[in-house]
Formats: sequence, structure tokens, C-alpha cells
Amino acid sequence: MTNTKYDVVGIGNAIVDIIARCDEAFLSNHGMEKGFMQLIDSSQANELYADMGPATEQSGGSVANTCAGIASFGGNCGFIGRVAVDQFGKVFAHDIRAIGVAFDTPASDVGLPTARCLVLVTDDGERTMNTFLGASTELVPGDIDSDLIGSAKVTYLEGYLFDRPEAKAAFHKAAKISRAAGRKVALSLSDAFCVDRHREDFLALVRGGVDILFANETEITSLYEMNNFDDAAGVVRAEAEIAVLTRSEAGSVIISGNDTIEVPAEPVEKVVDATGAGDLYAAGFLYGLTSGKPLETCGRLGALAASEIIGHIGARPEVNLKTFAKSNGLLG
Amino acid sequence: MTNTKYDVVGIGNAIVDIIARCDEAFLSNHGMEKGFMQLIDSSQANELYADMGPATEQSGGSVANTCAGIASFGGNCGFIGRVAVDQFGKVFAHDIRAIGVAFDTPASDVGLPTARCLVLVTDDGERTMNTFLGASTELVPGDIDSDLIGSAKVTYLEGYLFDRPEAKAAFHKAAKISRAAGRKVALSLSDAFCVDRHREDFLALVRGGVDILFANETEITSLYEMNNFDDAAGVVRAEAEIAVLTRSEAGSVIISGNDTIEVPAEPVEKVVDATGAGDLYAAGFLYGLTSGKPLETCGRLGALAASEIIGHIGARPEVNLKTFAKSNGLLG
Repeated sequence: MTNTKYDVVGIGNAIVDIIARCDEAFLSNHGMEKGFMQLIDSSQANELYADMGPATEQSGGSVANTCAGIASFGGNCGFIGRVAVDQFGKVFAHDIRAIGVAFDTPASDVGLPTARCLVLVTDDGERTMNTFLGASTELVPGDIDSDLIGSAKVTYLEGYLFDRPEAKAAFHKAAKISRAAGRKVALSLSDAFCVDRHREDFLALVRGGVDILFANETEITSLYEMNNFDDAAGVVRAEAEIAVLTRSEAGSVIISGNDTIEVPAEPVEKVVDATGAGDLYAAGFLYGLTSGKPLETCGRLGALAASEIIGHIGARPEVNLKTFAKSNGLLG
Repeated sequence: MTNTKYDVVGIGNAIVDIIARCDEAFLSNHGMEKGFMQLIDSSQANELYADMGPATEQSGGSVANTCAGIASFGGNCGFIGRVAVDQFGKVFAHDIRAIGVAFDTPASDVGLPTARCLVLVTDDGERTMNTFLGASTELVPGDIDSDLIGSAKVTYLEGYLFDRPEAKAAFHKAAKISRAAGRKVALSLSDAFCVDRHREDFLALVRGGVDILFANETEITSLYEMNNFDDAAGVVRAEAEIAVLTRSEAGSVIISGNDTIEVPAEPVEKVVDATGAGDLYAAGFLYGLTSGKPLETCGRLGALAASEIIGHIGARPEVNLKTFAKSNGLLG
């Protein structure tokens, strides 16, 4: 195996989040299911935005958030995703580069604007997401940089990519290059509805092409169409090399061969905004893994990063995560 | 005097803030004076942005922030300012309308993009601002809606408008309409450097065309070229009908005829980001004044709104200010 330049290269949707607070009635009046993500088109996005309260904009995107987190821990990270030549595209590119992630996918100058996600945060800190994928849908297999993928210890893929055939093809191309180079492939199931839309594809991947699987409780039970977390965890043990299952305030479970490692959630004073909790857990975990830490430490780094992100609005860290982990005794 | 439809109509620059944290060295390395605002051109904005850390975007603009605050208190408010037809323009228009401010200035579809302010926040919570005025400079006297101005109890003008001759002409037109309709004119001196650039104009306005003057300590001493706050306060008493002088944690002083009303600052746990403190003080004060409250209550509403804004990132309120004031016993 040649030297690795990157710890992780992520491939996902390049999104700017537009975050506003709302009450429970707003969600039900707009037919949203609390805590989930739905895809919306341009006119739905305009209508919903007009109804929303004053907002804050911050770069987002699930795997992009993870890459930002890994860079904040001090990991070498690259990101592949498509923005447009517009102000949100500049915002996305600035933020991910400014935190230290290599990002060189050319911006699209035809067609759709940069993706945006209208995030509604209720008083309990739960987030409900409405994504207009825009230019993110223009990610094509040609955007997958073989040298970049081949030089990364882990290629991390976003389940949401499966929502578009071209992006799905890009996903498969990246996984193939990574495996051919003797690297690891990691996958996030993204969202229970996303799993529902692509169950057969995801099952095939877990059984054949993915080394590290990230899922929360609703996603893993949806994947195996089981009602019970323990049953689903039992099945995934036989199918995935490493499965990392997050359960919000109940902590996380790392399953690898015969090992089962339970990691408690880090206590937080108040959940201000849950956006990005899973993404930042993955950041801590993948940073730990690619730094050669034991799985339990990987999980604790994930839990710590998640605790930082849910204490404030937005899905990008407000503090340097390496410093934060050191001050919590998790890194030397 | 005919009925008033609006409590306050504000005229100012329509800006989106791009807010990032930095250390003191970043400011000195980039030749910035901490706590002040400087105007920058497009290429300076691009260079500085490339050097800045990951950021958050939020609508801003001094008088626009004040209008948002007045609306949050429940006041009827309108805003006049120029954005471009771009994503930041949509963000600005959305946010100010979503909080309840009437905003109908047509977006500019030629030339410069929507104004942006690169705000650097140091660990002490102080903000240093770098503004690219963009489309804001395209505000012209024709944008001043006479019916709107004539129907507002107070027209509130931003000193920063004086940085462009066309905007200055718009400013004078608005002040003239307001006076002719028997309304009040309020002015914010905006920034000590701004006062330095336009001292003679501002002195003429304070002596002749402005009923309510807002200034902080550095602005009022700069206006009269005095080293001492008390000396400057003594001079302004003879020249302005009402002068509202803010002094950060030392509170504020309201001067009107023979009256001198001292209002303490509201205690805050930690100054996270001072951006908008003066703007929100003005919001509380003008809401109180146009609701017929005594001057001391106006000052206390201002101090309360300022305390809310400095407790978080960004210059727009995160809570409903009417509810906040009621829970603090300031409104019935």
C-alpha cells in the first residue's frame, strides 16, 4: 500500500443550511415529520422559506460536516461535492477550506443554484430538514478524483447521494477505486426515509462493499425492517466489518466481529440544536480510527464532538475539536 | 397631523454579516482597528474573506438591525435600503420581512452585489467590521417613499449613508419630508471614523434637522472634538432636542433640555459578540418613545435589548423582545 496523503476523503451533498426556530404547530401545518429530512423542489423551497422566521446561514451537508469535524480534530481531509457559481457556493467553499479541508470540485456554472437546506429547530432542540439539492445533483462520476480517493485511508460516502442516479454512480465509482487501492469505505445511512427509498442498494453495499457503517437507531431498524434495536444490531454484526450505531442520549454501540463496545453520550446542559450530531459523531470516530486509536476511544471522540455541536445553532464546530478533546483528556 | 401608520421608518445600508472568530493577531496582521468599521472594496473583501475562518451569515446593517428590534418589540416599522438580485439579497429581504418589518425597496438588478460586512469577533466579544457596500451604494433619492416617511412617527437615519453622495441626498430628502409632515427625525452617528469623515455635515444636522441623536462615547467626543465625555454631553444638551449617549458597560445617558437620565447597563453573563449592541439599544429606545413611554423606560428597554444581542453571535434578536421585556417587568 502506498503512502496515504489523506486520512479521510468525503463525498456528499454540498449544502448551505438556512436555520430558523419554529414551534411544533409550524411543522404540522407544513406537513413535516419532526426530526427527519425531506427533499423539496425549488418552488417548495421558496414557499417554505417565505413562511419561515428570520434565519441564520451556515455551511452544512452531512458528510461535509463530518469532514469539517475531522479537520478540526487535526485530521487530513478532502471533500468532493458540487456547488454552483453563486454566493452560497462561495460560502460553502470558503467554510470548508477555512477549517482545513481540501475542496477542489469545480463549481457548476450552468443550471441549478447551490443546494440549501431549510432547517427548522423546535424548542426541544430537534431539527427538521427540507433540502433543495440544486447543484448538488450535478455531481457526476467524472468529479471523482481517483488519485484523491486512492490516497485516502477512508473514503466516506453519504447515503443521501443515492437520491440521484448520477450521484449514485459517482458513489459506486469512488467505492471501487478505494477498494482497489486497499483502502476502507465508510457509509452513512443518512436518514430513515433515505434507507426506505434505497434499502436494497444499501443492503447490497453493507454485505459487499462497505467496511464501516454509520447508522442511528431508526436507520438500522429501517434497514433490516425490524422493530427492535438489538435484533437489528445482531444482524448487522454478521454483515459489516465495523458498525457504529448511535442512539442519541442513550449513547452509541460499536459492533465489530465478536466485540460490542458501548459508549455513553457526553452529558450536555441543553440541546440547543441537534443538527449535525450524527455527522460530528462520525467525525470523532473516523479521526480516531485513522489515527490508530482503539474503537472505544474512537467512540468517545465521536460522543465528545457530538456534544459540542448540539450545544449551539448550526452543524459546524464552534471550537477547535483537537483542543476540546485534549481538555477533556481524550487526546494526548 | 394625520394618523401614523408606522412607528418608525429606518433608512440605511442593507447588509448581510459574515461573522467569524479570530484572535488579536489576526486584526493587527490585517491592519484593523479593533471595535471599528472600515469600508473595503470588492477585491479587499475577497482577500480578507479568503483569510478568515469558517463563518456564519446573518442579516445585518445598523439601522436595519434597529428596525428588526423594534418589530420584535411589537412596533410597526418599515425599512428602506438597497439589495441586489442575488442570494444575499434574498436573505436580507427574507429576514427583515420575517421579523415583521415592511421592506419594499426594489432589488437592484444591475451592477454590484448585495452589501456584506466581514465581522471579526475576538475572544473578548468585541467586533471589528469590514464593509463592502455593494448594492447599498445604489440607494438614491428616488427610493425614498414620501408616503411611507410621512406616515411614520420617527424617521431613523444611518450616519453611514453619508459615505455616498447619492445616499446622503436620499437621507436629506427623507429628513425634509419627515419634518414637513410634522414628524421626528432620528440620527445614529454610526461610528467614530464615520463622524470624522462627515463632522461638518453631522454638526449641521444636529443643530438644525435632527430631533433625536444616538451616539456612543467615542462618536460624541469625536463629533465635538473633545477628549471628555462630560464636556461633549454638555455641548450636545444645547444643540439636540434629545441626545441618547451609550457607554457600553457604563450604561447610557439621556439628555433632554434640563433633564439628565442615567440608565445602568443590563448585567450580562458573558459578552459573546458585541455586534449590534448600539443598534438594539436604539430599537428599545425608539420603541419606547413611539409607544409614549417616559424617557427612563425608553432607556431601560434599550439596555435590555442590547443585553440580549451581546449574549449571542449576530446582531438580530434570538428571542421575541416584547416577551423578553415583559418577563423583565418592563412592559405590561
